[in-house]
Amino acid sequence: MPELRRDPVIGRWVIISTERSKRPDQFASALVEKEELAPGERCPFCEGNEDMTLPEIYAIRRPGEPPNGPGWESRVIPSISPLLQIEGNLDRHGHGMYDLMNARGAHEIVVEAPRHIEEAELSREQVGRSVNVILDRIQDLEKDRDIKYVLVFKNYGKAAGGGHIRHARTQIIGTPVNLKRIKEELEGTKAYFDYKDRCVFCDMIKQELQAGKRVVAESKYFVALAAFASRFPFETWILPKEHSCDFYKVDRKKIPDFTELTMTVIAKMRKVIGNFPFNFILHTAPFRRDSGKRGYWETIESDYHWHFEILPMLTRVAGFEWGSGFYINPLPPEDACKAVRDAQVTI
Amino acid sequence: MPELRRDPVIGRWVIISTERSKRPDQFASALVEKEELAPGERCPFCEGNEDMTLPEIYAIRRPGEPPNGPGWESRVIPSISPLLQIEGNLDRHGHGMYDLMNARGAHEIVVEAPRHIEEAELSREQVGRSVNVILDRIQDLEKDRDIKYVLVFKNYGKAAGGGHIRHARTQIIGTPVNLKRIKEELEGTKAYFDYKDRCVFCDMIKQELQAGKRVVAESKYFVALAAFASRFPFETWILPKEHSCDFYKVDRKKIPDFTELTMTVIAKMRKVIGNFPFNFILHTAPFRRDSGKRGYWETIESDYHWHFEILPMLTRVAGFEWGSGFYINPLPPEDACKAVRDAQVTI
Repeated sequence: MPELRRDPVIGRWVIISTERSKRPDQFASALVEKEELAPGERCPFCEGNEDMTLPEIYAIRRPGEPPNGPGWESRVIPSISPLLQIEGNLDRHGHGMYDLMNARGAHEIVVEAPRHIEEAELSREQVGRSVNVILDRIQDLEKDRDIKYVLVFKNYGKAAGGGHIRHARTQIIGTPVNLKRIKEELEGTKAYFDYKDRCVFCDMIKQELQAGKRVVAESKYFVALAAFASRFPFETWILPKEHSCDFYKVDRKKIPDFTELTMTVIAKMRKVIGNFPFNFILHTAPFRRDSGKRGYWETIESDYHWHFEILPMLTRVAGFEWGSGFYINPLPPEDACKAVRDAQVTI
Repeated sequence: MPELRRDPVIGRWVIISTERSKRPDQFASALVEKEELAPGERCPFCEGNEDMTLPEIYAIRRPGEPPNGPGWESRVIPSISPLLQIEGNLDRHGHGMYDLMNARGAHEIVVEAPRHIEEAELSREQVGRSVNVILDRIQDLEKDRDIKYVLVFKNYGKAAGGGHIRHARTQIIGTPVNLKRIKEELEGTKAYFDYKDRCVFCDMIKQELQAGKRVVAESKYFVALAAFASRFPFETWILPKEHSCDFYKVDRKKIPDFTELTMTVIAKMRKVIGNFPFNFILHTAPFRRDSGKRGYWETIESDYHWHFEILPMLTRVAGFEWGSGFYINPLPPEDACKAVRDAQVTI
């Protein structure tokens, strides 16, 4: 079973992933990666290859079609090499000065099309369906009391960790502990709210819509911004205009609007920088805010504001970033915004 | 001039590096990188090409040889595309809700050999000289009251951001603000000391030397450990056995011992995983601990323990890491340690 280990200095958790392990000498060629499926290699995510996956958790399929066979439009399966596992218990324990626990949680793959197509080939209907399926899954995972947070993300392209199977999919990971990155955001949003009595994201949206120079695109309910302190060239955030801390409680009537804005933004980015590798990551509030915790837990609903981050992987993180926690971005976000906003696309 | 921008949510600083900027449409081919110097391209770090660099800051050269010409063994120059600049002032200011400052600081390159050789080809004498030059530079930068922290690092190989000029060198960056990563360590080491009245690193060294299974190598004054919560396969830390928070105050008589241990560890790692890309990063205490600050500033000398981190870049950081701040490591550090420790090398 994979193991969660805590760094004793800064409290950072690491998953020692026995499911993905290799022998030490196998790492010598680790960075020589396959780009595509090998000739004759079957894609486990394609319709007709359901025997290659674990039994499905959820699917949208034609009425009367039995599970784990063809006839579906969207299919959710457990990861074959899960980072966290649904069985067992957390078993928090110490080993001398060190802290460990079992990697209990969930790791699901949402397969977004039955055919072997990439994200860029998905139709508006398919993307909208995928968003709804993700919402269904988060609502279900919320019922598991051991899961504190649900991380939803997409790794697109080799430089973003997308692997060699280029079949459109999104990953959902339910974690047994709260995530360092989200804790940092919650501490920041609480400090801002305590000082200003306003949500930092709401203020940001208001200021950006007034200034205009970092607004990539806007729809009725959502806005896409080039982040003021972008870590990466073309980093773009998509936020709901109306304050809300939980993505999974979004009004589903707004999904077509969200889908159209997101697809438009990514199409515009592709027009400027080609078929770019990126990570697409949901930032939302943790579950379990009713368990008597204090600090930022008490005020998450007013402090926090869910959003997605599109992080293009066009530059490398190197010694400076690892050592400092700072980032170097060679492209002013205002320049990125202008180029992307002005690109003409039809989706 | 490059600009430092602060993310308003989590306070992370980003350098918008105008010195390295490109047009937005130039990013389409950003990840197609040159591996080597092009035919006829001159290396700016080679002896004889001193005209390609800015005037040198410091050099170890034969007596009587004038600066900025040949005849040197080690040479320190300002970066031609500095992340931070020595001129000007910080000019902290706001822009609506956002915070900015000028990217004031220092960015120096320590060229470690006059000939065009890679790190792995450096002699023990050259590495030892380089360590002494780095110490000289930190001691000098400490006198600049605007510099709060000095980050020393090496990017080796393409996947570690090493670029296409494969001439052995180390980068030194003096920053005007304290680094997020170091603040996290200082908060962690203070919390541990407050609770235990002991340095967390001293405890770690003691426990690891007793257990043995993560001790990669050991010398009289230093120890190399496979970190318990390694983020990366083969992540290795080199620490002084004796408690000390400031690298730049190290007793120079210990440098040959440090050099030999570090070179041995890297040679052993190369024996197992080949010519691997890595970042090599100093973690040391910040300057300016006497300015009346409270919190972790008061007790850095007892809490903190300098060390170097060797971070091999054999795996990719993807959506899960960006979204969570957690890491996935497919190789248990105990297995990495055994393979590296058992490798036979002569340096």
